[in-house]
Amino acid sequence: MVSLRNESHLSDLARRAGKATLGNPRQSAEMISFYAGFPDPGSLPIADVIDSTRVALEADGEWALQYGASAGDERIIEELLKKLARDQKIDAAPENILVTNGASQALSLIVDLLVEPGDTIISEAPTWMGAVANFNQAGADVRTVSVDDDGTNTSELRAILEELRSEGRRAKLLYVIPNFQNPMGVTMSLERRHELLAIADEFDLPIIEDDAYFDLRYSGAALPALYTLDSSGRVMYMGTFSKIMAAGMRLGWLIAHEDVISRLLPLKSDGGTSPFGSFVATEFAASGTLLEHVQELRALYHQRRDAMLAALEREMPDGTSWTTPDGGFFIWLRFPEAVEMATLVPACRARGVEISPGPIFYFDERGSNEMRLSYSFATEPQIDEGIAILAAEARKQLATVGS
Amino acid sequence: MVSLRNESHLSDLARRAGKATLGNPRQSAEMISFYAGFPDPGSLPIADVIDSTRVALEADGEWALQYGASAGDERIIEELLKKLARDQKIDAAPENILVTNGASQALSLIVDLLVEPGDTIISEAPTWMGAVANFNQAGADVRTVSVDDDGTNTSELRAILEELRSEGRRAKLLYVIPNFQNPMGVTMSLERRHELLAIADEFDLPIIEDDAYFDLRYSGAALPALYTLDSSGRVMYMGTFSKIMAAGMRLGWLIAHEDVISRLLPLKSDGGTSPFGSFVATEFAASGTLLEHVQELRALYHQRRDAMLAALEREMPDGTSWTTPDGGFFIWLRFPEAVEMATLVPACRARGVEISPGPIFYFDERGSNEMRLSYSFATEPQIDEGIAILAAEARKQLATVGS
Repeated sequence: MVSLRNESHLSDLARRAGKATLGNPRQSAEMISFYAGFPDPGSLPIADVIDSTRVALEADGEWALQYGASAGDERIIEELLKKLARDQKIDAAPENILVTNGASQALSLIVDLLVEPGDTIISEAPTWMGAVANFNQAGADVRTVSVDDDGTNTSELRAILEELRSEGRRAKLLYVIPNFQNPMGVTMSLERRHELLAIADEFDLPIIEDDAYFDLRYSGAALPALYTLDSSGRVMYMGTFSKIMAAGMRLGWLIAHEDVISRLLPLKSDGGTSPFGSFVATEFAASGTLLEHVQELRALYHQRRDAMLAALEREMPDGTSWTTPDGGFFIWLRFPEAVEMATLVPACRARGVEISPGPIFYFDERGSNEMRLSYSFATEPQIDEGIAILAAEARKQLATVGS
Repeated sequence: MVSLRNESHLSDLARRAGKATLGNPRQSAEMISFYAGFPDPGSLPIADVIDSTRVALEADGEWALQYGASAGDERIIEELLKKLARDQKIDAAPENILVTNGASQALSLIVDLLVEPGDTIISEAPTWMGAVANFNQAGADVRTVSVDDDGTNTSELRAILEELRSEGRRAKLLYVIPNFQNPMGVTMSLERRHELLAIADEFDLPIIEDDAYFDLRYSGAALPALYTLDSSGRVMYMGTFSKIMAAGMRLGWLIAHEDVISRLLPLKSDGGTSPFGSFVATEFAASGTLLEHVQELRALYHQRRDAMLAALEREMPDGTSWTTPDGGFFIWLRFPEAVEMATLVPACRARGVEISPGPIFYFDERGSNEMRLSYSFATEPQIDEGIAILAAEARKQLATVGS
C-alpha cells in the first residue's frame, strides 16, 4: 500500500473537505439547468474578447504573457479603481486592492489569514456554497444568521455576538452578501446596513462583503456598499469579472485596508493572477466595452427574471413561496414541507431539469424543502418548460403525501 | 484598534508566511536582471497567442468564457496527454491529470492534502524558492538533502529516512527537481533516479517530481521521468506552460495516481483553472505552434547559456565555481567564502544588476557566498555587461578582505 493513497496520511484539512467539485458546464447545457450561477452562454462577449486580446497583446504583449506582480498588474488596478469609483462609489487607492483568481481566491486568502480550526465565523445561512465549502474546510466553528426580505437578520447577529462574548469567545469574521444575496436573491436594506455596521463596531467584528452581482440590478436604486459606509477599515469588499465579462477569465478583486492587503500578499503565492486574462480584461474595461456589455446583461437577465417569476406564478402549487430579486441570478423557493429535495432533485433530473437543493447552501441539515433557482443559464422557453416540470414533480410529491 | 489589523488575530499560517511577494517584472526590465526565472520577453509568442485566441474563441467561445470543471477542460486534458506521451513519454489517462493555476498551485494542493504543521518534508537544498515559501508556510519540519553534479544525493536521503525511522517518524513527501534543477542547473543521472526510487519504495515515500524545464534541453539526451520509472503510483509529476508558451497564462498540470487526483479535486475550489487561458493554450498546442515554439526557445536559451558560461569563464575571479546546465534557465555559482551576498546584492543593484542571493533557496542560513544566475531574461550584451559588473564587485570584496 502506497502511503500517498492511505487515508490515514491525509491532512486534517483534506479530511474536512467535502466531495463537491465543479463539474463540466457543458453537461449542464444538455439539460434545462437552473442549477449553477453560470452566465448565459449566448451573452458571453466572444467577439469583444477576441478584439480586446488583439489590442492588449499588440500594445503590451510582453507583459501580458509574463509572470505578474502578486497584487495584480498596475493597469488592471488602475481600471478597477476607476470602475469601482464610477459604479460602486468606492474610493480606494492601489494599496487597497488585490486582483485575485476569481472572488473565491479572495475569500480563501482572508480565511487563510485569520482563521484557525475552531475559530468562529458568522455567516448568513443559506449562503453561497463556495463559502460553505471554504468555511467547513477551514474547520471553522460557523454560527449562522438568517436572511429575510431586508437582508441579514441583525437581531440574530447581535444575539450570537453576545452569546460568544458570554462564552469568552469572539468571531473572527462575518460573511455577508448584501446585494441580491446568493442564494436568496434579497437585498439588505439601508437601515440594516447601518445597524450591521454599528454592531460590528461594538463587537470589533471584521466583515467580508461579497458583492459579485452589484452591476446586475434590474429594479430599485443602488444602495451604498458596507465598505463605503464604514470608516473603521473593518470591511473587506469582494467583486468579480465573472458575471459582467466572463467567468472563464477567473478574475476577481478584493478591496480592503492597506494593512490587510499587505498581509494577504505573501499568502498569494500564485505567480500573479493571470496576467494574460488581466490585460484582456483591462482593455475590455478601458475601451468602454464593459460598460456597454453590462447594460445588455441587465436587460437580458431582467427579462429572464421576469420570465421565471411569471412561470412560478403560473405553475407553482399553493403553499409555495419565493423571493423577488431586484438583481443578480437567483430566486429562492420554499415548498410546503412535504416536498423533499432528496426526491425532487432526481425526479427533475430524470426529466432533464437540473436544480440546486436547499441543503447545499446551509452549514447544517436545513433546507430540505427549499431550493435555489438560477435564471441566468436557461433560455426563456427552457424556463417555461423547466418550471412546469418542477411544479408537476412537486405536485406529485404533495399528492403522494396527501393520499 | 480594528481586530482585523491586530497581529494577534492572525492565523498560525499567516504568522509563518514570509514577507516575500512577486514584484512587477516591468521593474526587472529596467535593470540587467539575472534574478528571476522570467522567460525572455522578446521570445513570447504574441502574434501566435492572438491567433490562437481568435481560433479558440470562434470555435468554442461560449465554453472558454464560462466557468470550467475543477480538473480542467476536456480538450486541454486531451492535448496535454498527447504532449506528455510524445515528449515526456508519460503514459497517463484523463483521471491522472489536474490542470492547475501554474505548477505552484499543484504544489500547494499536494501540501494541503498531506501536510500538517510539524510533518516532515524532505527537499533538495538549495531548491526553488516557491517551494521554500510553501513548505515554511505549511509549518513543515523540512529535512534537506544536497544536490551534486549527478542530482539529489541519495546517500543523504537514505540517512535522513533512517534517522526519521529511528525517531519513529516518517516523511510525508520528497520534493525533487530532476532536470536542470532550480537553482543549481544540474540533472539527476539515470543511476540516481533508480536509486532514489528504490529508496522511496523501501521507505514508502511519496515523491513530487517538479519538471518545469523538461522541454528546454540544449545538450545530452532526455532521461526518463521518475514518474515513468515508478510502478507504485508514488510519483506526482508537475509541469507548466510558463516556460514553453507564456508564464502569463498561469497554466500548469499535475500527473498522479487517480486516487491522488480525486482527493485533490475537492481542495481545488477555484472555479476551474482559467478556461480562457486553457482554451487558448489548447489551440496553441493543437495547431502545432507549441512544438515549433519550443524548438525556437531551445536555440535561444542555448545561446544565452553559452554566452553566460563564456562571460563567467572570462570574468570570474579564481576560486569561483559554477555549474554547466544541459537545459533550463539557471547556473549556480559559488564564490570564495569571503564574498558575501549581503554586500554583493546591493552593490550590484546600485550598478543596475539584479541577482538572486543563495540564502533564498535554502531553508536555513546557508548560501551566503552562493547565487543563482538566470540567463533567460537578459539579452546577450546585457549578459556580458552584467557578468563583468558582478565579477568586478566580487573582486572588490575579495580585495577588501585580502588587504
